[in-house]
Amino acid sequence: MKKYRRNQRVGALMKIFTERPNHVFSYNYFSELFNAAKSTISEDIMIVKGLVQDLEFGVIETISGASGGVVYIPTLNDEETKALLYELCDAFSNPNRIIPGGYIYMSDIFHSPYYSSRIAKIVATQYAKKQIDYVVTVETKGIPTALMTAKELDVPLAVVRRNTKVTEGSTLSINYVSGSSKKIGNMTLSRRAIREGSKVLIVDDFMKGGGTAKGVMDLMNEFNAEVLGVYVVIATKEPEQKLIKDYHSLLLLEEVNEERKEITIKPNIINLF
Amino acid sequence: MKKYRRNQRVGALMKIFTERPNHVFSYNYFSELFNAAKSTISEDIMIVKGLVQDLEFGVIETISGASGGVVYIPTLNDEETKALLYELCDAFSNPNRIIPGGYIYMSDIFHSPYYSSRIAKIVATQYAKKQIDYVVTVETKGIPTALMTAKELDVPLAVVRRNTKVTEGSTLSINYVSGSSKKIGNMTLSRRAIREGSKVLIVDDFMKGGGTAKGVMDLMNEFNAEVLGVYVVIATKEPEQKLIKDYHSLLLLEEVNEERKEITIKPNIINLF
Repeated sequence: MKKYRRNQRVGALMKIFTERPNHVFSYNYFSELFNAAKSTISEDIMIVKGLVQDLEFGVIETISGASGGVVYIPTLNDEETKALLYELCDAFSNPNRIIPGGYIYMSDIFHSPYYSSRIAKIVATQYAKKQIDYVVTVETKGIPTALMTAKELDVPLAVVRRNTKVTEGSTLSINYVSGSSKKIGNMTLSRRAIREGSKVLIVDDFMKGGGTAKGVMDLMNEFNAEVLGVYVVIATKEPEQKLIKDYHSLLLLEEVNEERKEITIKPNIINLF
Repeated sequence: MKKYRRNQRVGALMKIFTERPNHVFSYNYFSELFNAAKSTISEDIMIVKGLVQDLEFGVIETISGASGGVVYIPTLNDEETKALLYELCDAFSNPNRIIPGGYIYMSDIFHSPYYSSRIAKIVATQYAKKQIDYVVTVETKGIPTALMTAKELDVPLAVVRRNTKVTEGSTLSINYVSGSSKKIGNMTLSRRAIREGSKVLIVDDFMKGGGTAKGVMDLMNEFNAEVLGVYVVIATKEPEQKLIKDYHSLLLLEEVNEERKEITIKPNIINLF
């Protein structure tokens, strides 16, 4: 069987940890993969631990005991977080994005693997230690950020649908009132999507009145799930009174001025800085 | 400024490459990041190149010239691909997934970051060299696999919607006929989502009659986009004649037998082995 050099093992470990953050790998797993003694792997892990710390990639934690192992918990530091938030504000506030009616075209950013994966790192940094069982979102534009967050946290994603689909099996369904337009809508989730009594994190792209988020919270209540957080990428400044109180938003959309072709959007400093 | 040891740089390089596969990084970027001479970085890259090859993670390519740099092109080898396909068959064929009417509950797998990111590696392995500009999918269940594929290929994702949304700006829209139920549906994509004349890869979760895929192809035609491939996770055996001829599917769903509680699903050997 092949043997590997130390810097090969260190590189490979870093790849494996990066591909599956917040997942506990056993020492045995690495020992077999690299055909190396556990003591050798322990030394490798110490090196990886040091480099992750020195380069501010997060932390490597070792968990002792029978179900123990090693886990990589990535974190974005404050400087990187700020830089990303300003980069996002730049991207979203491009006046070419203004759509008649005062809307903003955002789909390209929300669907972008580049942006969604990096936004997810901010969200996951806040929730890595909270023992989340599921990330929950509502179709459609919230899915990429929610999926990437679920990937970072190494948990499944549940996607609430706007209509009941035959391929979802038996479903739980609620009506909700849109916070801004006061329209009544329906949202539905397969009973199989979430185990009763789970802890969930709700992630979505955009919040105006908060009706959708409140709907998802009500739906989670039907599953006896505990909502540990509601995270949206952008919240609007108006209405200031949303239908839910406890939520985090990365960015605050203050104004869209069609006439002057100006979009005012800012990092939401209160929550993150 | 901080200096790093070789095995720290090798680990960090592997992390950076893993987080953004198929992206060309300049030597300057690494040189500044690690505060090290370009010659040092070159030696580091040679080590990473060796380890990526020895451990069958794919290839590291160096591109010379002004716009040159280094790119990590991950590949799944045949053994890993086969193992993943059989693991997926196991997961999908669990008889508890059968829903009245002969449907199969699949949302948890399609929405899973764990499965979707690994399926994406199979798809991206086939298309990494094809200069894809966009991955295109249709809401909803195809989004995770398509997003992860776009991430692997380092390109944007465009999501075709079933309804016209005011937040999409001006759109192109087509009617299509479902291949299995013969119902007429509508699909729409923002004009801003894809540049004219682009090369696209269509990724979706499931194909029965092929009507949806044909619809997306027709829509791509409206954007003067060239479709370089259509990839679905699961295609049904029946009808054998789909509305499109050229497509790849990872798995073939042969039969759902409600009475015997049996799902027959197999790796699609013709395309991949």
